[in-house]
Amino acid sequence: MTRRALPLSRVYGLLEPGPVVLVTTARRGRPNVMTMSWHTMMEFEPPLVGCVISNRNYTHGLLKATRECVINVPSVEIAEAVVGCGNASGANVEKFRKFHLTPRPATRVGAPLVEECFANLECRVVDTRMVTKYCFFVLEVVKAWIDPAVKNPRTIHHLGNGHFMVAGERTKLKSRAK
Amino acid sequence: MTRRALPLSRVYGLLEPGPVVLVTTARRGRPNVMTMSWHTMMEFEPPLVGCVISNRNYTHGLLKATRECVINVPSVEIAEAVVGCGNASGANVEKFRKFHLTPRPATRVGAPLVEECFANLECRVVDTRMVTKYCFFVLEVVKAWIDPAVKNPRTIHHLGNGHFMVAGERTKLKSRAK
Repeated sequence: MTRRALPLSRVYGLLEPGPVVLVTTARRGRPNVMTMSWHTMMEFEPPLVGCVISNRNYTHGLLKATRECVINVPSVEIAEAVVGCGNASGANVEKFRKFHLTPRPATRVGAPLVEECFANLECRVVDTRMVTKYCFFVLEVVKAWIDPAVKNPRTIHHLGNGHFMVAGERTKLKSRAK
Repeated sequence: MTRRALPLSRVYGLLEPGPVVLVTTARRGRPNVMTMSWHTMMEFEPPLVGCVISNRNYTHGLLKATRECVINVPSVEIAEAVVGCGNASGANVEKFRKFHLTPRPATRVGAPLVEECFANLECRVVDTRMVTKYCFFVLEVVKAWIDPAVKNPRTIHHLGNGHFMVAGERTKLKSRAK
């Protein structure tokens, strides 16, 4: 896959629709990946993303220690791996291997990109004041990548209890929003 | 439309997929409504929702003053009204009237439900520590309503610059997530 850099000003268009994402971290050379749906944009540029990563997740401690992660956006083609990563814990499973995902080096952070995802956002933790109470991290996207060959990615959206919605038709409306 | 109460433990399934929502507020008997996409679940029960409401939005001041709002979830049938509410400001437009939306009394808050939306979440502001820096409010959902006749709502998801995705097919996967 050939990736190209995505201007940081366009990152919001990837996360606003609410896709399930894969969050990668790494520590002592060992990569980990978790599945996440609780995220929101907080600023356009530099792009800020707020997300809840429970302290029951192995990633929570890694993110606090390294303050770096990558948000990877998958499409429905790898839905089984996405769900598998959500059912397992990095505390006792090598998830990249088990779910046939490929870690690739990022440029600005130590956490890996997931090759099989059509977009990857390299992030640094910039605010932890809501971590203790809500497990809520504020991340700044410092580098963004996109696969230009993927035109209308069929992202996955969690509806609860194992039910998911897949991105459907696209439409243009007379919005003056960014 | 007949609404029924939705158990608070099931609220997350409405917001996790990332729909565009309508946020209503009211002050001195005058209701207002704005369009929003920057929100995330923060806790299952009681359901907490984090959302960014810019201080350039008329709603920002109303929410700070009243500490109450309703998050209403629209489907594509009223997409034009949703986009219209995003393009106009309550500072100089009576948006309910202009976009043919119907305010209905809520039970726990002073802000109105939008009749034309298939779900309505009555909310109170519970944490403002990130309002000054990020315009980020933490809301608690205190009462939730759903139209039981709407089985697979075609929610609207913002992709930026006037482009939207409409919720597509649904699928069940072997997720052990809530």
